[in-house]
Amino acid sequence: MVQFFLANIFGKGEMVTKMENTVVKERIKRLREEMAKNGIDYYMMPTSDFHNSEYSADFFKVREYFCGFDGSNGTLLVGRDDAKMWTDGRYFIQAENQMKGTGVELMKMLEAGVPTISEYLLSNMEKGQVLGFDGRVISTSIGEDLEKKLGTKEVTLKIDKDLAETVWTDRPLLPCHDMYVLSDDLCGKSFKDKLSEVRKKMQEYGTKTYLLSKLDDIMWLTNLRGNDVECNPVALSYAVITMDSFTLFVQEKEITKDVRTYCDKVGITLKEYGDVLQYVKEMKAEGNILFDKRNTNFITFKVLLDKVKKEDLRLINAKDPTEDLKAAKNDVELKNIREVYLRDSAKLTEFIYWVKNTVGKEPVTEYTAAMKLDSMRAELPGFIELSFPTISAYNANAAMAHYEATKDNAAEVKKQGLLLVDSGGTYMGGTTDVTRTIVVGDLSDEIKKHYTLTVCGMLRLANANFLEGCTGKNVDILARGPLWNAGIDYKHGTGHGIGYILNVHEGPQNIRWRFTPGQNEAPLVPGMIVSDEPGVYIEGSHGIRIENILEVVGGVENEYGKFLHFAHLTYAPIDLEAIDTKYMDDSDIRALNDYHKMVFEKVSPLIRDEAVLGWLKEATREIN
Amino acid sequence: MVQFFLANIFGKGEMVTKMENTVVKERIKRLREEMAKNGIDYYMMPTSDFHNSEYSADFFKVREYFCGFDGSNGTLLVGRDDAKMWTDGRYFIQAENQMKGTGVELMKMLEAGVPTISEYLLSNMEKGQVLGFDGRVISTSIGEDLEKKLGTKEVTLKIDKDLAETVWTDRPLLPCHDMYVLSDDLCGKSFKDKLSEVRKKMQEYGTKTYLLSKLDDIMWLTNLRGNDVECNPVALSYAVITMDSFTLFVQEKEITKDVRTYCDKVGITLKEYGDVLQYVKEMKAEGNILFDKRNTNFITFKVLLDKVKKEDLRLINAKDPTEDLKAAKNDVELKNIREVYLRDSAKLTEFIYWVKNTVGKEPVTEYTAAMKLDSMRAELPGFIELSFPTISAYNANAAMAHYEATKDNAAEVKKQGLLLVDSGGTYMGGTTDVTRTIVVGDLSDEIKKHYTLTVCGMLRLANANFLEGCTGKNVDILARGPLWNAGIDYKHGTGHGIGYILNVHEGPQNIRWRFTPGQNEAPLVPGMIVSDEPGVYIEGSHGIRIENILEVVGGVENEYGKFLHFAHLTYAPIDLEAIDTKYMDDSDIRALNDYHKMVFEKVSPLIRDEAVLGWLKEATREIN
Repeated sequence: MVQFFLANIFGKGEMVTKMENTVVKERIKRLREEMAKNGIDYYMMPTSDFHNSEYSADFFKVREYFCGFDGSNGTLLVGRDDAKMWTDGRYFIQAENQMKGTGVELMKMLEAGVPTISEYLLSNMEKGQVLGFDGRVISTSIGEDLEKKLGTKEVTLKIDKDLAETVWTDRPLLPCHDMYVLSDDLCGKSFKDKLSEVRKKMQEYGTKTYLLSKLDDIMWLTNLRGNDVECNPVALSYAVITMDSFTLFVQEKEITKDVRTYCDKVGITLKEYGDVLQYVKEMKAEGNILFDKRNTNFITFKVLLDKVKKEDLRLINAKDPTEDLKAAKNDVELKNIREVYLRDSAKLTEFIYWVKNTVGKEPVTEYTAAMKLDSMRAELPGFIELSFPTISAYNANAAMAHYEATKDNAAEVKKQGLLLVDSGGTYMGGTTDVTRTIVVGDLSDEIKKHYTLTVCGMLRLANANFLEGCTGKNVDILARGPLWNAGIDYKHGTGHGIGYILNVHEGPQNIRWRFTPGQNEAPLVPGMIVSDEPGVYIEGSHGIRIENILEVVGGVENEYGKFLHFAHLTYAPIDLEAIDTKYMDDSDIRALNDYHKMVFEKVSPLIRDEAVLGWLKEATREIN
Repeated sequence: MVQFFLANIFGKGEMVTKMENTVVKERIKRLREEMAKNGIDYYMMPTSDFHNSEYSADFFKVREYFCGFDGSNGTLLVGRDDAKMWTDGRYFIQAENQMKGTGVELMKMLEAGVPTISEYLLSNMEKGQVLGFDGRVISTSIGEDLEKKLGTKEVTLKIDKDLAETVWTDRPLLPCHDMYVLSDDLCGKSFKDKLSEVRKKMQEYGTKTYLLSKLDDIMWLTNLRGNDVECNPVALSYAVITMDSFTLFVQEKEITKDVRTYCDKVGITLKEYGDVLQYVKEMKAEGNILFDKRNTNFITFKVLLDKVKKEDLRLINAKDPTEDLKAAKNDVELKNIREVYLRDSAKLTEFIYWVKNTVGKEPVTEYTAAMKLDSMRAELPGFIELSFPTISAYNANAAMAHYEATKDNAAEVKKQGLLLVDSGGTYMGGTTDVTRTIVVGDLSDEIKKHYTLTVCGMLRLANANFLEGCTGKNVDILARGPLWNAGIDYKHGTGHGIGYILNVHEGPQNIRWRFTPGQNEAPLVPGMIVSDEPGVYIEGSHGIRIENILEVVGGVENEYGKFLHFAHLTYAPIDLEAIDTKYMDDSDIRALNDYHKMVFEKVSPLIRDEAVLGWLKEATREIN
C-alpha cells in the first residue's frame, strides 16, 4: 500500500467562511464553557490516537465531533470567539460542505497567505494566555515546537485535559477488544529471547528502564496481538521494561484467560492501560530512562522529563531497539510469509480473472469489486482481517491519492481503461500488500507507455544487486528511472517495510529518493521485506500502480563485500494487454518473461478452476 | 582522477620491528633533545601542509625527514624511548624497507591487534605528560578528538611548536611562487560580486567576521592564482573577511606588481602569510565569527575559540559559503570549460592513436607514454600545468590504487593487454581530468567483460535523468549497477567535482554510494561538473577505468518538479576492441553509438593529421 508524503498538518492554507449548523454550534458553545472553567483560551484538536496510529478509532474523533468534518487529516482550533480547521488540498471541498453553517472557518493548508497553526497562534495569542490540548494526541516534536515558539510570548500550555470527556456525552468507548497470544512456533522467537535482545540494547544505551509506546513494537516483543486499531492487529498498550521486570499496560477487559495465563508464564506483569503515567511518576527508576521521542506522545514525554529532573537521572532519546529487531524477519517468519504471500497471490490472480470476465457482462463498481476481493481473501486459511481498506479505483479515480470508493459514490467499471486495486490481508502467517492495475477495455498508447514504464521500474528494482550498507535511497532510482527518463514522477515513496501479522507500514527501512538533512538512513539487511510500487497518476485521466513485495536476500560475499538482492514474495500476473515492448529494453522483456514464468510455476498449483488456469497460462505467456 | 577512500591515518594495524640507519637515528636524537627542552613526552608528525592540501611540498616532509619513509600517507610518533610510524597497506613493504635500521617501528594500520595512534597514546601516556605537534598540520577534528580522549588521562597538548624548525637545519623553504591575476572576463564574475555573495551568506549565518582557510576557495573568491601546491594553482593564504574589509594573508615575496595593483584596485588588503594568527588574536571582531571546522587547522581553531571566549562572541562553524558558490560554474566558466575539454579530448585522442601505433614498433614504457602525453598537452593554448601527475599503468600495475610509474621502475608496454591512462591539465579556461584504458594487444574474454561493463556503467550514469534535489548517492548505482550485477565493485568514488582553473578534486558534490550517518549530502545543481569513472581492478591481472567529465544541465520542468541530466564534457573514443556486446543491453549499445557519433563530430574538426582522422572514424564506428 502506497505511503504518500502528507502535507504537514501545520502547513499553510487559505481562509474561507460559511453558514448555520446548530448541533455543532451548541457543541462548540459547551466546549467554550469547559475552556473557561479550565482557564484555556484556545483548545486544539488534531487527528490522532495516543500512539499516532495510522487509523484512529471513533473514540478519538473529537475534531469531527466539534466541526462535522470527517476527513483523515485535520486539526480544529477553538478560541473564545473563533474556530478554525486546518486541512490539506484533498479535503477542501469536503470540509467546506461538511462544516457549512458551523461557524468554523476552513484553513487551506499550503495555500498562499494562510498561516500554519503555530503561526496563527503566535500572532493571535497574548501574553499570559493558555493553549490547551490533550497531550496524549500530540506528538512530542509538535508539542515541543509549540512550547518553544509560544514560550517567547509567555503563552503557557495546558496538556492534561481532554475537554471532550465532559462535553461529548455520547462518546464511543475507547476501543477495547480481546487480545490473543501467538505461539512461539508461529513467531519463530519467544518473548523471553526477544526481551533479552532488547535488554542488551538498553545496556548499550546505558539505560536501566525503558518506556516503549509504539503499539506494533509492543506486539512484536510480547508475541501478543490485539484489535484496537482498524486493520492493525494491535492492542492499545504501553510497556515499561527494566532489567528484571516487564510491565504491560493494557485495558483489563482485553485480557482473556489465555493472555493472562501466558503473561503469568513468561513473566509479564499486567497493569491497567490508563494508569501508565501515574505508574511512571511513581516507579523506582534505577538508572537512565530510554525512550524514543518519535514514538512518544507529548504528555508522556513531559512526565518522563519531570521524573528524570526530580530524580537526577538522564532521559536517553534513541531509536526504539525493537524497530531494527522487528524489521529483519527471522527464518520462521520468512517461511510463513512466503507461503502466505503465495496463497494471497493466487487469490488475487483469481480475482483478476473474475474482473476480466465479469466487467461488461454483469454490473461491477469499484466498491463491489473491492467487496468481491475482500470476501475471496477472507476464505484463505488463517485470515484475520484486511491489512488496510482495499483501494479500488477506476480510470481517473485512480489518479487521486487516497481515493476511497464507498458503496454510494463508487464508479461503475466499464469495458474501457484500467481498474487499480491495492489490497492486502493479515493472516496467521503474515501481512500482505499488493497492487495490480487491471486492463478492463481499450487503452490509449499513452496509457500503455505509462503502464510499461511502471512495470519496467518495478522489475528493475526487484532485480537489483547491491552491496550491504545500501539503503533505499541508493536503489530508488532503479524504480523511478524509466519514468524519470520520460519526465514523469510519482509523488510517493517507492517502498515501505511491512510487519509480520502486524501493520502494513513499518520502518525503519523504506525506498525513497529525497534526502532529509540530518536524518540517518536504514540499510537494507537480509530478512527485511519491502514494497516496490512505482506508479503514474495523470489527473482526470488514469492512475497506474504495480506493487510487488520483495524480501532482501544475501548473495555473493567476496573481496568487495557482501552483495544483497531481492526475491519476489508476490506472484501475480502483470497485465500484458497494457504492455508495449517498444518502451522496454531487452533486459526488461527478459525480466518480465522470467517473472511471469515464476508466477505460473508458483501460482498454478494453487488454482483449481481449469478456466482460470487456462487464462493464467495465456496471461503469463512469453513475449518478445 | 579517481578519489580513493583512504584508510584513516588513525586506523588500526600490526607491529613490526627492524635494524641500523645512523642519519635518521641522529635526527631523532636531536628531536628528543628539543622535546625535552620543551617539556614534550611524545611528538607527532602527520602528513599534511597547513591547509590539508592534496599534495604537500618538501617543506612539510617532516615525517620523511625523521624516519626515511616517503609514501603519501603516514604519521610518525616519537616518544622519549620509542618511535613508531603508522601507514596503510599500500605502503607496508616500502615503509619497512625505507625505515630499516632507523629504530622506528612500523604500525600497520587496520591490521588486527594494532592500536590506532590515539589508542596507543591513551594506553601509553601518563597523567601530567605532554603530547606535542605542530597545530598547523593537524585538522581540528583530529586535534579535538585527541584533546578530549587524552584529557581523560590529564595529558595536555602542546601545539604551538614546530620542532623541525630547529632540528632540520637544511630544511627546504616554504613554497613561495609568484601569484597571478585572472581577468574578470576569464572568471565570469568579479571579486567584488563574489564577495558580496559571501557577505550575504555571512549575514544569513549571523556573523560579521569570517576566517577562510581553504586555498582553492580563496583563489576562487579573489580571482587570483598561485603555484605553491603541486598541480594545484593555489597560493598559501588565509583571508579574513568583514562587512567592510578583505584582508589576504600571502607571502610578501609572491606578490607581483600586477597582483599588488589589482589588490589595491579591488580593495584587498595584503598582509604577510605568517602573521595571520597574530592578526586574528588582535583584530577587532565586531560580531560572531564564521569558520568551517573541516577546513581549519587545529591551532587556528584554538586561537579563534580563545578569542570568542575572551570577547564574549560566538564562533559559528558552518560550511564555507564559498564552497557552493564555487561549485556551480557560471556561464563564462562553462563556455570556457567546454572549449578546453574539447581541445583536451582531441589531444588525448591523438595520444591514443600514438599509443596504438607505437607500441610494438618502438620501445614504450608507462613512463615514456606519460611523458609523451604530458608534452602533447603542454602544446595546447593556455596550458598552465598538469592537474595531477599523470597515471600511466600497464596491465597488473593498473590494478594498484595509487600506482605511480617512475622513470626507473616503469613497466614496458608490450603488444598485449591494456594501458590505463588517467590524466588532465589546468589551462587558462579550465581544469581537465579524463581516463581511458587503451587496448594494446590481445585481451581475455574476462577482460572484455570487465571493460564492457565499465563502459555500460559510465554511459548509464551519463544518460541519467533525475529530479532536482538528487545527490550523488541517488545516481551512483547507475554506474556501479552493471558491475554489481556481476559481483564486482570498485573501492573508490564514482565521481568528484572539479575546479575551474583550480584543483582537480573539489566539493561539495560527489558521486558515492555509502552513507555517512549525520553527514548531509550536496544536491547536484546545474552548472556543477562531476567525474563519472567506474572501474574494475583485478589484483595481479588488470585494471580498467573509464572516466568522462559531465556537466549538470537543467531539463524539463513540469508538475513533478525540475528534471536534470548530464552533458558530456569529455569526447574521446572508448576502445571498441575491448567491447563485447553480449554484456550490453540494446540501450547500452545505442548509448555507445550515440556517444561515439558525438565524439567524431566534435573532435574530428580539431584533428589535422589524416591518418589520425581515418583511425578516429573507424574507432568511433557504429556497432550492433
